[in-house]
Order: sequence, then C-alpha cells, then structure tokens
Amino acid sequence: MKWKRSERLVDITLHLIEHPHELIPLTFFSERYQAAKSSISEDIAIVKETFEEKGAGQLVTVTGAAGGIKYFPKMSDENIKAVVTELIEKLGEKDRLLPGGYLFMADLLGNTRLMDKIGKVFASKFADQNIDVVMTVETKGIQIAQSIARYLNVPVVIVRRDSKVTEGSTVNINYVSGSSKRIQKMVLSKRIMQSGQRVLLTDDFMKAGGTMRGMKSLLEEFDCELAGIAVLVETEHHDEVLVDDYLSLAKLCKVNEKSRTIELNEGNYFEKGGQSS
Amino acid sequence: MKWKRSERLVDITLHLIEHPHELIPLTFFSERYQAAKSSISEDIAIVKETFEEKGAGQLVTVTGAAGGIKYFPKMSDENIKAVVTELIEKLGEKDRLLPGGYLFMADLLGNTRLMDKIGKVFASKFADQNIDVVMTVETKGIQIAQSIARYLNVPVVIVRRDSKVTEGSTVNINYVSGSSKRIQKMVLSKRIMQSGQRVLLTDDFMKAGGTMRGMKSLLEEFDCELAGIAVLVETEHHDEVLVDDYLSLAKLCKVNEKSRTIELNEGNYFEKGGQSS
Repeated sequence: MKWKRSERLVDITLHLIEHPHELIPLTFFSERYQAAKSSISEDIAIVKETFEEKGAGQLVTVTGAAGGIKYFPKMSDENIKAVVTELIEKLGEKDRLLPGGYLFMADLLGNTRLMDKIGKVFASKFADQNIDVVMTVETKGIQIAQSIARYLNVPVVIVRRDSKVTEGSTVNINYVSGSSKRIQKMVLSKRIMQSGQRVLLTDDFMKAGGTMRGMKSLLEEFDCELAGIAVLVETEHHDEVLVDDYLSLAKLCKVNEKSRTIELNEGNYFEKGGQSS
Repeated sequence: MKWKRSERLVDITLHLIEHPHELIPLTFFSERYQAAKSSISEDIAIVKETFEEKGAGQLVTVTGAAGGIKYFPKMSDENIKAVVTELIEKLGEKDRLLPGGYLFMADLLGNTRLMDKIGKVFASKFADQNIDVVMTVETKGIQIAQSIARYLNVPVVIVRRDSKVTEGSTVNINYVSGSSKRIQKMVLSKRIMQSGQRVLLTDDFMKAGGTMRGMKSLLEEFDCELAGIAVLVETEHHDEVLVDDYLSLAKLCKVNEKSRTIELNEGNYFEKGGQSS
C-alpha cells in the first residue's frame, strides 16, 4: 500500500509521541511508507516545525551513518506556567486542609491528566540530563515518577518501606527523617539498578528532605549518580533543607487550621537551571 | 497566523492523543486554525482513516448541536497479541524465579514503555464500558492502574494498607486473603470516590482473588459499581477463584524451583468479551 503525505504526517506524529527520547533512523520511515528518503525528510521538516511552534517539543536530527531523528517532549514556558498555576489553585482549595496542617492530595496524584502534564513539565527540564532511571519511594511518589519516566522513556524504580518476598534480595538502609527525626527504613531490590546509572529522584512532598537524603544514600550503595531531584510541593520550615539542587513546582508557605487558609507560592522551578526550551 | 493542512493534521493528532475519551467540538479546531468547518471535517476524515487503518484507535463523530469528535485509544488484535507475547516472554525469564515460587516483576512494572502498552490493551477492552475510576491497592498495582486510567482519561484511586494522616477520614474494611487465609486491612479515603461511580479494579497479580474481593467490598461501602477487573498475571491454584469476570493477560501455570522453569500461558483476555475493535 502506498501512503499519502497526509497519512504519513499523522502516522509519524503518532510514532514519535509513542517513542520519546529514542533514535529513529530515517530508513525506518522510508521502509514503512515505501517512500524516498527525500520525501520523508520533507515530512519530518513539517512535523518538526509544527511540534516546535506549538510547544509540543523538540525534534532533533542526528546526522551520519547511525543517524535519524529524536523527539524530546518539552513544554513551552507558557504552558509550564499554566500547569503550575493550575496545580497551585487546586492545592489551595480550602477543604484540602487536614488536621495537623496536612494537605489532602490523593485526588491530585490520581488525576491522570494533571500528572501527565506535570510529568512533561519535569521531563522538559531534565531532557538533556541523560537520565537513566527515575526513583521514588512508595506510595505517593509513584504516580509522579511514572509520569516523568514515561516522557523521558526510562524505567521507574520504587523504594519500599519493608522487605517483600517479591523483591528478591534487597539492599536495606536506615535513615533519619528530616522533620520528625525518627529512624526509618528503605529497601531496594538489588537487581533493579546497575552501577553508574544517572538517577532522578522524585516525590510528592518535601519538608526537610530526609526522604530524599535517604534515597541519596541508597544511590551510593548502588554506585549510582544523582542526576536531579524533582518535587511536586515543598514546604517552608525552620530546619535546614538536607538536599541541594532540587526543583519544586509549588511551595506551601503557611497553613492556618483555624481560619482554614492555605498559602502557596510557586516553587523554584523557574529560578533553577535553563534546560527547558 | 494561518495554518496549512499539513500542520493542522499534525496538531489535530497531537491534540487527540492528549485528550482521549473527551468530546472535542469541531468549533474548537475551526477557531484554533481559523479555518472553515468543511476543511476541518476533511482533516478529521484523514486523521480518522489513518488512526483506524494503523490500529491507533477509533475516532467517533458525535452529531448534533453538542457534537464533535471523540478519540478512543484502541489497539488492533494483532498489536495486542504482540504485547501479550512480549509480556509472557519476559515473565518466563529463568532468573525471575524467587524462593517460594514467586516471580520477580518489579522491573516489568517499572518498564514505562511496556506498562503504557499494557494500559492501552486494557483500555481497548474497556473503552465502551463507561469507566469512571480505576482502582488498585498499593503498591505494585499502581503502575498498571495509572497506565490504564491515562488511556481512559479517568482518575486513579489507590487503596492503602494502613491509615495515613494524609488520607483524611477513611473507610476501613477487613477481608480474608484468598490464598493465605489471613485477615488483612484495606483503607480508602472517604472523599476520593462518589457514590454511583463505575469502577475498574486492577492489580499486577491474582491468586485466589482475595484482594479483588476486598476491593469489591469497598465498592459496596461507597455505593459504587464494579465495571470490570483487569489483572496482569493470574496464577493457577487449587482454590476456587473468588471473583468472576476478570480479564488477565498471562497465566502462571507452573513453576519448578529445582529445574528453574516457569510455565506460562496466555490469560483469558482473548476469550472474554468482544469490546475490543
């Protein structure tokens, strides 16, 4: 069957979106469509221009014998702003306030559309950081981790709180939580990471950063490298933050249980780094 | 700015993929592109044909004043077969075998590409079932739940094993696990579901179905309706399965720890129902 240009454009778009961060040789498309490489190059140029103008991401051409194209999902700064604004609005809804000043967030973490956008926001920033793995600790970080990892096209690794038989042999560490100063445990399957991998840590909430520091210790045990830290919400507090160089989308400044008010600000996402397009 | 047809095709494809199961009025596109509705209709026809021929899913036109188009992600049977074959091949790798006959699966659940495809496989089957929510129990079901929910464009709800302060007030139930006959607990935030919602249950592994039956009891507490059960791997066993009408992709038939062999078969996905295109 012969493909028309219009069909090829739709199909190339579909294929790229399903294979982010993956080198696709031009021959893949020319064989699939039974079309000359010059026609494919023209198709790609149209897709590239539309992706980039509309803020869907970057299409990079790799030249040479092992060449092809690579799609990097990236959001425009304007769209990122809109996601952060949406997140802050939702976080600020009065009825999220729980006894003890905690915020109810399970509905936001379960909002697949919002999580997808947040995944793309972080994937935009870390697109050029050669991330091999996204790591989080169970339970509430998993949805963010998966959303980021999907756009970076890398695996997710989940640290457990207890040994499970289904994890096989594990590396266990103890760490001190930053705010409550309690000793806690982290458990990671031995076979799930290889030494030398570059790891992005993520979680839904960060207070003093004890959990993040725990995961950093785990990385050392596995001879892995910290590539970045992505946090949905950080909270203002009196202790020193135990990790540097984290990125956050929102900052919880103040909660007043009596008047039921929640004060939020943008996180440091826009201050840090410049990897985003 | 005036959009060319080629750019519109790329942009429509992007937009549909990001908004599955959502009614998009034609006016949305005609305003976005400053183009006549007749041109947009022609664009849509091209996209529809390509999506359907290439097995990317179904594009349904809703006529009338509140009309528009809706994209239902669906995989072709051929592609579904390929995903199930890939899953079974990976599950059968000898070194997955853990003491006690368990299979190590954390790497598969963390494989975002594979999970994405599995999400689409189940979303294909449940596309016409008016699912409102996908529910699972922490921890290992979360990645599958999120992958399915993303394609159905519905939220994920995660049942916890223990009360957490961040869940707010909860409904707690006790249930008896199917295989070990132990009494276990399930906890679900009260505010996370509304009565009357149609719920798809999912998990990575099902033995006698005790966990599923536990989640079914929870649905009753919330006056919700069971819409289906999606299981990655079921295992053969001597007890009666406690739930009916589940779908599974793979079936673990036999493991031999001494010879280190794992026998697997296709699950019942292809026998059950006919909702898939």
